[in-house]
Amino acid sequence: MNINVGRKAVAEASEKLSNHGRWGGDDRLGTLNHVLPEDIVRAAALIRTGKVFALGMPLDRHGPQNGLFGGRWNPIHTMLATGPDAVAGRYDKIPGIRYCDDALNMPVQAAQHWDAIGHIFNDDKMYNGFDAREADSNGLGNLGIEHTKNRMVGRGVLLDVARFRGVDWLKDGEGISNDELDTCAKEANVEIRRGDFVILRTGQMERCLAEGKWGAYAGGDAPGVRFENCYWCQDKQIAAICTDTWGVEVRPNETSELNQPWHRVVIPAMGLTMGEMFCLKELAEDCDADGIYEFFFCGAPLVITGGTGSPINPQAIK
Amino acid sequence: MNINVGRKAVAEASEKLSNHGRWGGDDRLGTLNHVLPEDIVRAAALIRTGKVFALGMPLDRHGPQNGLFGGRWNPIHTMLATGPDAVAGRYDKIPGIRYCDDALNMPVQAAQHWDAIGHIFNDDKMYNGFDAREADSNGLGNLGIEHTKNRMVGRGVLLDVARFRGVDWLKDGEGISNDELDTCAKEANVEIRRGDFVILRTGQMERCLAEGKWGAYAGGDAPGVRFENCYWCQDKQIAAICTDTWGVEVRPNETSELNQPWHRVVIPAMGLTMGEMFCLKELAEDCDADGIYEFFFCGAPLVITGGTGSPINPQAIK
Amino acid sequence: MNINVGRKAVAEASEKLSNHGRWGGDDRLGTLNHVLPEDIVRAAALIRTGKVFALGMPLDRHGPQNGLFGGRWNPIHTMLATGPDAVAGRYDKIPGIRYCDDALNMPVQAAQHWDAIGHIFNDDKMYNGFDAREADSNGLGNLGIEHTKNRMVGRGVLLDVARFRGVDWLKDGEGISNDELDTCAKEANVEIRRGDFVILRTGQMERCLAEGKWGAYAGGDAPGVRFENCYWCQDKQIAAICTDTWGVEVRPNETSELNQPWHRVVIPAMGLTMGEMFCLKELAEDCDADGIYEFFFCGAPLVITGGTGSPINPQAIK
Amino acid sequence: MNINVGRKAVAEASEKLSNHGRWGGDDRLGTLNHVLPEDIVRAAALIRTGKVFALGMPLDRHGPQNGLFGGRWNPIHTMLATGPDAVAGRYDKIPGIRYCDDALNMPVQAAQHWDAIGHIFNDDKMYNGFDAREADSNGLGNLGIEHTKNRMVGRGVLLDVARFRGVDWLKDGEGISNDELDTCAKEANVEIRRGDFVILRTGQMERCLAEGKWGAYAGGDAPGVRFENCYWCQDKQIAAICTDTWGVEVRPNETSELNQPWHRVVIPAMGLTMGEMFCLKELAEDCDADGIYEFFFCGAPLVITGGTGSPINPQAIK
Repeated sequence: MNINVGRKAVAEASEKLSNHGRWGGDDRLGTLNHVLPEDIVRAAALIRTGKVFALGMPLDRHGPQNGLFGGRWNPIHTMLATGPDAVAGRYDKIPGIRYCDDALNMPVQAAQHWDAIGHIFNDDKMYNGFDAREADSNGLGNLGIEHTKNRMVGRGVLLDVARFRGVDWLKDGEGISNDELDTCAKEANVEIRRGDFVILRTGQMERCLAEGKWGAYAGGDAPGVRFENCYWCQDKQIAAICTDTWGVEVRPNETSELNQPWHRVVIPAMGLTMGEMFCLKELAEDCDADGIYEFFFCGAPLVITGGTGSPINPQAIK
Repeated sequence: MNINVGRKAVAEASEKLSNHGRWGGDDRLGTLNHVLPEDIVRAAALIRTGKVFALGMPLDRHGPQNGLFGGRWNPIHTMLATGPDAVAGRYDKIPGIRYCDDALNMPVQAAQHWDAIGHIFNDDKMYNGFDAREADSNGLGNLGIEHTKNRMVGRGVLLDVARFRGVDWLKDGEGISNDELDTCAKEANVEIRRGDFVILRTGQMERCLAEGKWGAYAGGDAPGVRFENCYWCQDKQIAAICTDTWGVEVRPNETSELNQPWHRVVIPAMGLTMGEMFCLKELAEDCDADGIYEFFFCGAPLVITGGTGSPINPQAIK
Repeated sequence: MNINVGRKAVAEASEKLSNHGRWGGDDRLGTLNHVLPEDIVRAAALIRTGKVFALGMPLDRHGPQNGLFGGRWNPIHTMLATGPDAVAGRYDKIPGIRYCDDALNMPVQAAQHWDAIGHIFNDDKMYNGFDAREADSNGLGNLGIEHTKNRMVGRGVLLDVARFRGVDWLKDGEGISNDELDTCAKEANVEIRRGDFVILRTGQMERCLAEGKWGAYAGGDAPGVRFENCYWCQDKQIAAICTDTWGVEVRPNETSELNQPWHRVVIPAMGLTMGEMFCLKELAEDCDADGIYEFFFCGAPLVITGGTGSPINPQAIK
Repeated sequence: MNINVGRKAVAEASEKLSNHGRWGGDDRLGTLNHVLPEDIVRAAALIRTGKVFALGMPLDRHGPQNGLFGGRWNPIHTMLATGPDAVAGRYDKIPGIRYCDDALNMPVQAAQHWDAIGHIFNDDKMYNGFDAREADSNGLGNLGIEHTKNRMVGRGVLLDVARFRGVDWLKDGEGISNDELDTCAKEANVEIRRGDFVILRTGQMERCLAEGKWGAYAGGDAPGVRFENCYWCQDKQIAAICTDTWGVEVRPNETSELNQPWHRVVIPAMGLTMGEMFCLKELAEDCDADGIYEFFFCGAPLVITGGTGSPINPQAIK
C-alpha cells in the first residue's frame, strides 16, 4: 500500500477500520471475536507430535526494562520464606513446616505480555466508544484483560520474517510490509485465516540476548510492521498479532507527526489484541526443521481485574 | 487404606513413594515426567466443541488472603498511567500517546497457583535430594517453577466430589478417601491415567463466594484429600493434583503430630505438582451437563526465575 | 462558634480562611510559613532534660489499614538477604560479606504520616490555586511533600484532650470545640503561638491498642475536632495540627452534605499541614508528670518526590 | 596507624574494639549509648540562627541504585489516586472527596539511610553476640532499626574532607586517614566528643550529580575512610558516622582478602551506627560561610519493625 503516514492517515484508517459496534455496543473482546469454537476444534488437529513450546520470557531482574517508558521496572522477585531459614529451624514452630515462599512485583507489561484493548486511547475514547476516563486509578473499568480470560486459544501461525529474509535479525528501523507478510506466509506454506493468532519473528530479542544487553529494546527503536499493517490485520480478520519486539510496529515510526501511528488504529479503533516480547527462538527453529508453521496456540492471561494487560507464557503446541 | 497418620506414617510414605533418582539425579520436574508427548496428542482429541473454561481467579484486593500464613497479601494492582490523566492531556508531550498502564504485586501463591516442587522441604532436603539451602533469598536455586514452563499441558480430568456426594460443598474437615476418588471417577465414566492433571472439586471456594467472605479459607480448615491420597497419586502416576481449596489436603489434618502430613510426602518425596484455588464452577456445570469429565488441559506458569510457584489461569478445553 | 456545617459553611470558610497568595503565588508551604527562624531558636530552649519521645508507629503488617479507604495496605516488609542465608554461606562468594537487607512497600499515608498540602483538592484546584490535574500518575506536580523537607521543625505543644476530660480516650463521634482547646491549653499552662506544631491527644489509638484490634480506625468513625476548628487554626496561625487519629476531624462528620468538611477547608484553602496517627502515650505521660506541655519538635518527612505525604517518626524533645 | 589490612587485622580489631557486653547483654543500641541526655541539652545550644538543613535525598526513580548489590532498586512511587481522576469526578461518590494518594516501595537502604547494627554479621553472630539466624525472613529479630527510634538525636559535626583538601571531591579509591580527620577537625575549630554524630563529606555524591549520572556509586568504588578509622571511632566514642558515599569506607578496599574490612569491625564488633548517602552540599556551604561546623542533629529513622535500616531525612539545625 502507498500510505502517507501521519495524522491524516491515522484518522482515515481509524474510521475505515473501526470495529466499534461490530460485535455489539457492549463488546469487550474486539478481534478476539474472530475466533469461533470450530476454529479451536480445527486448531486442536494441529497437535500431532506433542511438542510444547513456551513463548514466555524469564521474569527476573535481568528483564528488558530500563525505565524509558512510563517508569516500568523489571520484575522484582522477593522471598517471603527461604530454605536457609527453614533449615535453621526458623519455621519449625510457626507455621510448623519447612518451606519457601515468594512474591512478584512487576508492571504487567514489563516483560512478555498481552495488551488489553483498553490500553491505548483515541483522544478520550477507548475501543467501542468506552470513555477513557473509566480507566482510572482503580483500574480499567471496561476493557480490562480479565474479559479475555478464556479467549486466547486458537490457531497459531508463525511468520518468521527474519528467516525468510535470510538474516539472524532485522535491524532497528526496518519495516515489514503487507506484501512481505503475504510472501512469507506463502513460503511457509501457511494460509492466514480468520481468527488466527499471528506471530511475527524479527529476531530483535535474539539479537539483544546474543549481545548480552537489552539496551533500548523497551521503548526504543525496533524492526516491525509498517503502518499499512492495520489494513492487513483487519482484512485477514486475525484474532491477535504478536512479535518478539517491544511494540510490534517499526520504530522510528514512519512519521514524526505522532507517536506510534499503528497502535492508535489497531487498539482503539479495531480492538486488536496485541502480544509483545514473545520468545520465539525454539519455536522458529522447530518450524524451520519440520516446515510446519501452524500450531495450537494457548496463551491465557492472568485474570487481573482491570488490568491493562497481563504477563504471560503462551504455549505453542505441535 | 488404614493408616495411622503421624510422623511414622509420613516417614514410611516418604520412603516408599520416593521418586528421587527415578528420572535421573538432575531431574527438576518430578511427576510432570509422567506426561509423554503422545499423551498430549491424545488429549488434543478431547477438544470436540471448542468450549474453553478459564480456571483462574480474579487477581485483586478482594482475594482470599488474610495474612494467616507467611504474611501473604492479596494482589495489589496499581496504575502507572490512567485514562483521566490522558484525557487531561498529561501524556500528550511525553510519551506522546494516550494510554493507561499498571503494575501487579502479589505473593506467587496468593491466589490460584502452582506450587513448584521445591516449595516444601523434608528437613534440609528438597525433591530429588537438592539442598534446601539453595532456596535462598535469591530464589529457588534448583527446583523453581521456571523448569515447568512448557510442561503443564496434557489430559485434564475433573473429579467432582461435591456433586458426586450430592452437596453444594464439602464441609471443612471432611476428608476424601482414595476409594471415594475411584468411585467418583467410575461414576463420571472416566479413567485416571498416567500423566493426568487431576482436578478435585470440593465446592469450598463456591461456599466462600456464596457467603461473601473468604474467612479462614487461606491457611484455615478445609475439606480435602486424606493422607492416604499420596499412595493413590503415586499409584495412578498422575502429573498433578489440583483443587478449589487452599491446600488440597484435609484440615484440620488427620494428626496433631505434624502440620500438613500429605504435603510433606507428595512434594519433597514424590515431586508431585500441585495446583491450588482453582475456580471450578463453570467447568463442573458443563461436565455435569454433557457427562464428559475429561478435557485438554493447558496451565502454563509464568516463567518466574526461581519462583516457588506461579499465579496461573489454566484452561480446560473441551 | 455556632456553625451550621454543610456545603455553605465550607464555601464560606474556604473563602474567609483562604491563604492563597498570602505567601506569594509560588508558595508551596502554606502554614509552615508561620514558622520563623527565631521560633526555632526559641523552641531549642525547651530542650532542658534531653528526653526524646518518638511519636512514630511501628511499620509492619500489624498496622492500622484495612483497605477501607483507597485500597491502602499495611506496610509490607520483605527481606532481600537474611541471616540464615548468610550463616549457610550463601553470600560468602557474592557479595562476599554476611549481611541482611530488606525492602518496605507501603502507601505513604498507611501509618503515621504528614499529609502534603496537595493531598486534598477543592474541585479542580489545590492550595494556592495550583491545578489539581498536575497531581497525575507521575506524582504531585507542585505541592509534594518534598518541599517541606527542612520545614517540620519548631515548637511543639501537646493538648491532651483525653486527660483534660479525665478519660482514657474520647469516644468515636465526640467532637472537640475551639473553646475546649483553649481551656485545655490554659489548664496545661501553655499558650498557643504562631508557628506551633499543635498535637491533640484523643486516646483513640490507645483504645485500639488496648482492645487489640484496629477495627475501623483507618477511615472509620473517630473523635476529633469540630468543623469550627479551621477558624481556630487560622486565628492561632499554627504551623501544623496533629493527632492520634486517622484524620483529625470528628467522624461521623457534622454534616451529611459532604464528606470531611474540615479537610476541604484546611488543606486546599489554608494550606494547613496535618499529621495523623501520632503515637502519644509516652509523651502524654511525661507531660502529665512534669506539667510541661511544650517541647522542641522535629518531624522531617522523607523527601518523596511528588509525594502526597510521607511516613514519619517525629521527635518531641524536652 | 600502620595496619596491614587483611583477615588478621580484622580479627584483631574485632577483638580489641568489641563493645559486646559493654552496655549489658541485652543492649540493642551499640554506640548510640554514647549519647547522654546532657549531650542533647548541650547540643540544643547550637541552635542559634534557626537555619535547618535537610540531609535527605529525593526518593524517586532517579535514585542511585543500579542493582549491583543485592538487587536493590530505586524507589518506586506509584499513585493510588490522582488529580485528573478527581477532576474527572471519579471519586465524587466514593470516597466522596477529591484527593490524591500514593505508595512507596523501596529497599530501606536504597537511598539515604541508617544501617541498623544488625545489618552486618561476623560469621554467625551479630553485635552483642546475637545469633545472625534470628535475622530471618520475618525481619531482624533483635537488632532492628526500631530500637533506635528516639536515639538519633545529639550533636552533629561536619568534617568537610573535600573542602579541607581544597578539592570539589575526593576521587574514588582515595582513603581518609585518622590523622586527616583530626587535622580537619582542628582546622574547622571543632572538637570531636563522646556521643557525636560525625558526618564526613567526600563530595562523591556531588560529583555524580554534577556529571548527571550515578554510575557505580551504589556498590562501586568510592573515596572513604581507611580501615584504621575503626580505632578512631572507638577512641572518640562517637555515636555514629555518616558520609555522602554509599558505604563510608574506601573502595577498592585496602585488602583483597575480604570485602569491606571496616564494616566487619564497626558493625558487628562495635555496634557503630552508620549513615550513608547524606546530601551535604548546602550544609557544607553554610559551615564554610560561617565557620561553624557543629550543629544540633536530629535524624529519626522510621520505626520499621525488624528493619535492617531505614530511609531517612536527617536535619542539621544551626
